[in-house]
Amino acid sequence: MSTEPTNPRGKLVLVPNALDLGTETEVDLREVLPQAVIERAATLGHWVAENAKTTRALLKRVHALVPLALPLQQIQITELPRPPKGSAAGKGGAAAPDLKPLLAAALAGHDIGLLSEAGLPAVADPGAALVQAAHALGIVVVPMAGPSSLLLALAASGLNGQSFAFVGYLPVEPAARAARLRELETVSRRLGQTQIAIETPYRNDALLAALVQHLQPTTQLAVACGLTLPGERCESRCVQAWRSSPGAPLGGRLPAVFSWLAG
Amino acid sequence: MSTEPTNPRGKLVLVPNALDLGTETEVDLREVLPQAVIERAATLGHWVAENAKTTRALLKRVHALVPLALPLQQIQITELPRPPKGSAAGKGGAAAPDLKPLLAAALAGHDIGLLSEAGLPAVADPGAALVQAAHALGIVVVPMAGPSSLLLALAASGLNGQSFAFVGYLPVEPAARAARLRELETVSRRLGQTQIAIETPYRNDALLAALVQHLQPTTQLAVACGLTLPGERCESRCVQAWRSSPGAPLGGRLPAVFSWLAG
Repeated sequence: MSTEPTNPRGKLVLVPNALDLGTETEVDLREVLPQAVIERAATLGHWVAENAKTTRALLKRVHALVPLALPLQQIQITELPRPPKGSAAGKGGAAAPDLKPLLAAALAGHDIGLLSEAGLPAVADPGAALVQAAHALGIVVVPMAGPSSLLLALAASGLNGQSFAFVGYLPVEPAARAARLRELETVSRRLGQTQIAIETPYRNDALLAALVQHLQPTTQLAVACGLTLPGERCESRCVQAWRSSPGAPLGGRLPAVFSWLAG
Repeated sequence: MSTEPTNPRGKLVLVPNALDLGTETEVDLREVLPQAVIERAATLGHWVAENAKTTRALLKRVHALVPLALPLQQIQITELPRPPKGSAAGKGGAAAPDLKPLLAAALAGHDIGLLSEAGLPAVADPGAALVQAAHALGIVVVPMAGPSSLLLALAASGLNGQSFAFVGYLPVEPAARAARLRELETVSRRLGQTQIAIETPYRNDALLAALVQHLQPTTQLAVACGLTLPGERCESRCVQAWRSSPGAPLGGRLPAVFSWLAG
């Protein structure tokens, strides 16, 4: 598909982020990122990210551990275009040509870091289209190991880790949300498939209440809140048990991941 | 559900592993594990794992970076019982009582590490039942950040990271495999959902050939092979392009993850 490059191309390096954005805690990066990832991040002079300001904040934290190869103000940070509302991220073949300018540095021989606001880039965030564009241009994509709140939550749930689906956000409107939950529970029962969803933190307790209300009593329901942070809580029990002992509210500040498996 | 403990309980710590088991490479653990995970692993005197021998091998690699708190021969390593054939892992509420002896150390106040042969424990491995048993006994579960080949492959695919399903292994028998692929492609098209599957390395090229043969030409197909290892390859293009330029064989030694999204 790609023509032979006239100069060696740079790579698109998928750099994981910590899971503490927007929380009151700043975790030590050595809690969540391998040393080699911190060192690689320190070498990169070109970044594409959701938000330039939070990228600079991360680079300052990297610099405190491993000095940056370039002064921060010389590091080029380009923001990803926000996907149009209602579009399915990662699906648009037509999006690839638009993103080519963001990959110009790689075509010129420089590695580019792709950063998410939390966890792995291109998972549950708008970075997937850039990765697709990189493949179309023959740019090598290098994913680096780091935290994924979805998979940490799944591991901590004790639910089926051999068959699972991430379904993103659920509808906010109560009737639509209840219908969606019933639909997903039917899928879970039929396939033995763990369902995983996320929510904006300030709606965490509303979603938990809806899950406890609408799922069947024998369905296993797990909540992982504040993963890798000091206030971390991982709870997993059947819906019946959630009804009789709901536990403390999740609060509206820490990100949470919800998983369930029909019993 | 649990009665008040008479002594403080230990925790079940989910310790990620490197992704190099069974390959010819031994990666530096600092490439894939955060320093805090290596340090935590070095403190643990009790482990539950799929395989005691490979656990000891990992602990030796940890010791080379951070001295173990106990001599290796004093560290207690218990192997997980193999799930009965045909059972769905992570689904058996009845399995919990059988696993209580494996959690005795936590009930006596000691932290226990749970280790997988590769990546995060309790994801695509038999550890989920132990995590479920821990929750039932009121033992706190702590997932630690590390590599997940499934999510690294998804990130590197550029396919939809906002809706995806891990479907485990596919049937080996060709007609059953072809039928399963058609079924999963239909699901992918209907839901816009990326499908993710794994295979035993020696069958990687057979599965890739089946995917290229049976999926529709416009379906996007990604292969991530040897993730985090020197021979790593991440390729993503439409099935039509795979047919016209199949690329080099994957070979039968490195683990691979396959993802596809109906176009």
